[in-house]
Amino acid sequence: MTILRLLALAGGLALAAPTLAQQAEKVDQAMIAKIKDEGMNRSKVMETAFYLTDVCGPRLANSDGLKRANEWTKGQLTKWGMSNANIEPWGDFGRGWDIEKSYVAMTAPYYHAMIGAPKAWTPSTTGNVKKQVVYVNATTEADLAKFQGKLRDKIVLTAVATPPKTTFEADAKRYTDDELTKMMEAQPARPTTEDPAMTERMNARRAQAALRTKLNEMLMSEGAAAVLSTRGGSHGTFFTSNGAPYAADAKPVLPEIEMSPEDQLRLIRLVEAGIPVEVEMETKTRFQNTDLKGYNVIAEIPGSDKKLKKEIVMLGGHLDSWHAATGATDNAAGCAVMMEAMRILKATGVKPRRTIRIALWGEEEQGLHGSRNYVKNHFADPATMKLLPDHEKLAGYFNLDNGGGKIRGIYLQGNEGVAPIFDAWLKPFADMGATTVTPRNTGGTDHLAFDAVGLPGFQFVQDGLDYNTRTHHTNQDTFDRLQADDLKQASVIVASFVYHTAMRDQKLPRKPLPAAVPKS
Amino acid sequence: MTILRLLALAGGLALAAPTLAQQAEKVDQAMIAKIKDEGMNRSKVMETAFYLTDVCGPRLANSDGLKRANEWTKGQLTKWGMSNANIEPWGDFGRGWDIEKSYVAMTAPYYHAMIGAPKAWTPSTTGNVKKQVVYVNATTEADLAKFQGKLRDKIVLTAVATPPKTTFEADAKRYTDDELTKMMEAQPARPTTEDPAMTERMNARRAQAALRTKLNEMLMSEGAAAVLSTRGGSHGTFFTSNGAPYAADAKPVLPEIEMSPEDQLRLIRLVEAGIPVEVEMETKTRFQNTDLKGYNVIAEIPGSDKKLKKEIVMLGGHLDSWHAATGATDNAAGCAVMMEAMRILKATGVKPRRTIRIALWGEEEQGLHGSRNYVKNHFADPATMKLLPDHEKLAGYFNLDNGGGKIRGIYLQGNEGVAPIFDAWLKPFADMGATTVTPRNTGGTDHLAFDAVGLPGFQFVQDGLDYNTRTHHTNQDTFDRLQADDLKQASVIVASFVYHTAMRDQKLPRKPLPAAVPKS
Repeated sequence: MTILRLLALAGGLALAAPTLAQQAEKVDQAMIAKIKDEGMNRSKVMETAFYLTDVCGPRLANSDGLKRANEWTKGQLTKWGMSNANIEPWGDFGRGWDIEKSYVAMTAPYYHAMIGAPKAWTPSTTGNVKKQVVYVNATTEADLAKFQGKLRDKIVLTAVATPPKTTFEADAKRYTDDELTKMMEAQPARPTTEDPAMTERMNARRAQAALRTKLNEMLMSEGAAAVLSTRGGSHGTFFTSNGAPYAADAKPVLPEIEMSPEDQLRLIRLVEAGIPVEVEMETKTRFQNTDLKGYNVIAEIPGSDKKLKKEIVMLGGHLDSWHAATGATDNAAGCAVMMEAMRILKATGVKPRRTIRIALWGEEEQGLHGSRNYVKNHFADPATMKLLPDHEKLAGYFNLDNGGGKIRGIYLQGNEGVAPIFDAWLKPFADMGATTVTPRNTGGTDHLAFDAVGLPGFQFVQDGLDYNTRTHHTNQDTFDRLQADDLKQASVIVASFVYHTAMRDQKLPRKPLPAAVPKS
Repeated sequence: MTILRLLALAGGLALAAPTLAQQAEKVDQAMIAKIKDEGMNRSKVMETAFYLTDVCGPRLANSDGLKRANEWTKGQLTKWGMSNANIEPWGDFGRGWDIEKSYVAMTAPYYHAMIGAPKAWTPSTTGNVKKQVVYVNATTEADLAKFQGKLRDKIVLTAVATPPKTTFEADAKRYTDDELTKMMEAQPARPTTEDPAMTERMNARRAQAALRTKLNEMLMSEGAAAVLSTRGGSHGTFFTSNGAPYAADAKPVLPEIEMSPEDQLRLIRLVEAGIPVEVEMETKTRFQNTDLKGYNVIAEIPGSDKKLKKEIVMLGGHLDSWHAATGATDNAAGCAVMMEAMRILKATGVKPRRTIRIALWGEEEQGLHGSRNYVKNHFADPATMKLLPDHEKLAGYFNLDNGGGKIRGIYLQGNEGVAPIFDAWLKPFADMGATTVTPRNTGGTDHLAFDAVGLPGFQFVQDGLDYNTRTHHTNQDTFDRLQADDLKQASVIVASFVYHTAMRDQKLPRKPLPAAVPKS
């Protein structure tokens, strides 16, 4: 936090004369009252979330579920009176993939139906296969060699890196006042690449991925039947991992199910005790190779100010999800809130000076593809930093993708210039728990695509709830996890931030343009 | 708590001269040291628990799994040098039942494999059935009537009474010092039948069961295909209920799967939104009608005192479990601890004055059948209170069946006379967290069978851990939930209590004999 901002926050001390920007920042209290009334008393956010999750279903990149969600959101935004609703292709992604059957059970030493789901983009088994299992407990290539000649026609178990623990801490949490104060007073975060612990973790992950590639080659050449693996979780919750390759020309892999750790561990313990274990499994998965493109859903409330209507305020979340659940907190919640913010604004009869544009991104989970390519197509390619004409027109981008928790503040993302603006805009929502403008950065989601080309893109600070323990990329990220009060609160705050960005005399301040980062 | 006991606990105040019993209670510190050494340094309790859970599998009353466990425990106790190991029939139970296939998925509006397990003692589906679903949301018989003519060939959904909630409290807990102090200072509990809240709950439960019986009749007469129901749980954990009737002449019921609430709720929300929902399911269950008897596993360390060896100290837990998991905390944990206590005692080369007898009960989950019938066969029938010769020979019975948590104390079960004895016996385990002799009663498990005929039967106070949230009668009561340190601690405390009961000059004090309770 800068000294100036600290003084500004301290508020009206003799030595801390407010700057011009702080004096001038307008907050439209009448409009905020309208937004709160519409958003808190006539909310549609849970209905929207229901359609995105239960009705559309899992929304893996380029899956049928994502296509349903694209169509439904386009239609719904149009119904609510938005303009120019469009399912806009962003470029080439890869194959679509959907599950048509998923079944796995232990059949010896006794019958036990197990919990798991096919790993994304893995092929079908040839009907119902029933095979002996082998536990390939390998941490090095030398370990792998020991299994040569022992894997033909076997179902292979890989190790459980993080066994479930009995939890003496709550699954769900909210930020405490103390934590929020620390976030507000924090120093701007350094780029994460300089964190040695992170580097170590990344290296370990790369080594693991390399070993897994070797294992895949060995399994194919040895003629193994299928793989059961696990990424973690507990009590019937399991995490899914990054999937098999989705490229149209990807190397073939074996059928694979990602398992609940308890079921995987039971199999492993039995095998290690020398007890023969047999598993039956059937996965039927369907690849779609006809349309390899990825899409974003776009819709607008057109601007009304002759001069400013060509400028744009954007808000977004990602519509795609992982496949083992319905991606309720990751990120139907964000999409439902952003759609609700648009609906609220429209319902207030708003006439924004700038154009307000919602983007529901596709293929975020595979590397922010939808947003990165949208930015590349419309604003600038970070590899060249050659700016397109719209680059200067973007007033700001707001993203919501940290689960289903209510908004507690916003990350500055290294853009100190917006701090007094966001301070002023958050103030009317202090009674709803949103107070904290933090100099910290956050990553992992679509505002980075904007940030990467010097556009002011922001992610809100959200209560974590059970995102890390139960929902983020798990089979339990379902509608049941959503908290109506949290989503309503988030909707009105987003609506207000977007509105104020649209009405402001100036676009939001920007950071200096970054240097081009040529593709490696 | 009585005044005398309070003074005794206060310890050596001038006005509180210890009574004769308190002065005389012997504690064999040398033996306790041996027990601790064997139990903490050469424990087999986790290995035993592994065999009971993973290797034997689910152990539903009269199932193949329970038979495997009967055979394995008898063999293991014999291997450890116990005498008279025996799988002793206790009388007629009913049909055996095992699962051979369990699969359930939503197939429209899109494919989603669901989490559930066949309700105990329900029949098979006729292969893989794929049907439209109907949500029968009924709280009265009048509600049921609305569904007449609408259920033929349908898969019927029943309501979710307790939807999952986001949990801001930890799944697992241990007793705090404050809670233990309150338990120690508590008044002896009144019989639970006098608790109006309990009466209300019981009445509600009875009304619900009666409605469910009506529904079952209607489903059979209308020709519905199957039922999906749920008992609660969250995040992939689901609870199982009391099962269909297991009597050999039970009325037929439909195939039924007990579901994870999240999956059930998704189906219900879709149906309620008017979206056609189709489910496919296959359950294959096998009834065993050849041997309808129930069994307990018994083994002994014979007494060595000429006069006292005909007297018996008993310890036990129940070997049967519910079917959707491997009953790790309910009650493989208790059985493993009791077996380990026997092993520890044997390993110390003990020569107990009285005979020590372990009983691993069958059919506890259907109403303490194994222990109640054992007591009736060996000691007394509570319906007549005509005492059998062995009634006077039982020095005491110790039970463990409150999950996998370590021992924090023991319930007096209304028997104030044992308080100073248990105080003395617990003292050497204060450093292991076991301190609390509580006047409270506890119910729900096999010590009640002894208590019902005036025999001194006790259940230990155990840390709850995640028993109520995750394991008790759930699909997640697996080996993964067991805490080695807790089970080791419990084993040495039980071994010591049993040893001291076997060596004591007198049997444990008894409460006055209860009046006969004729069968209603």
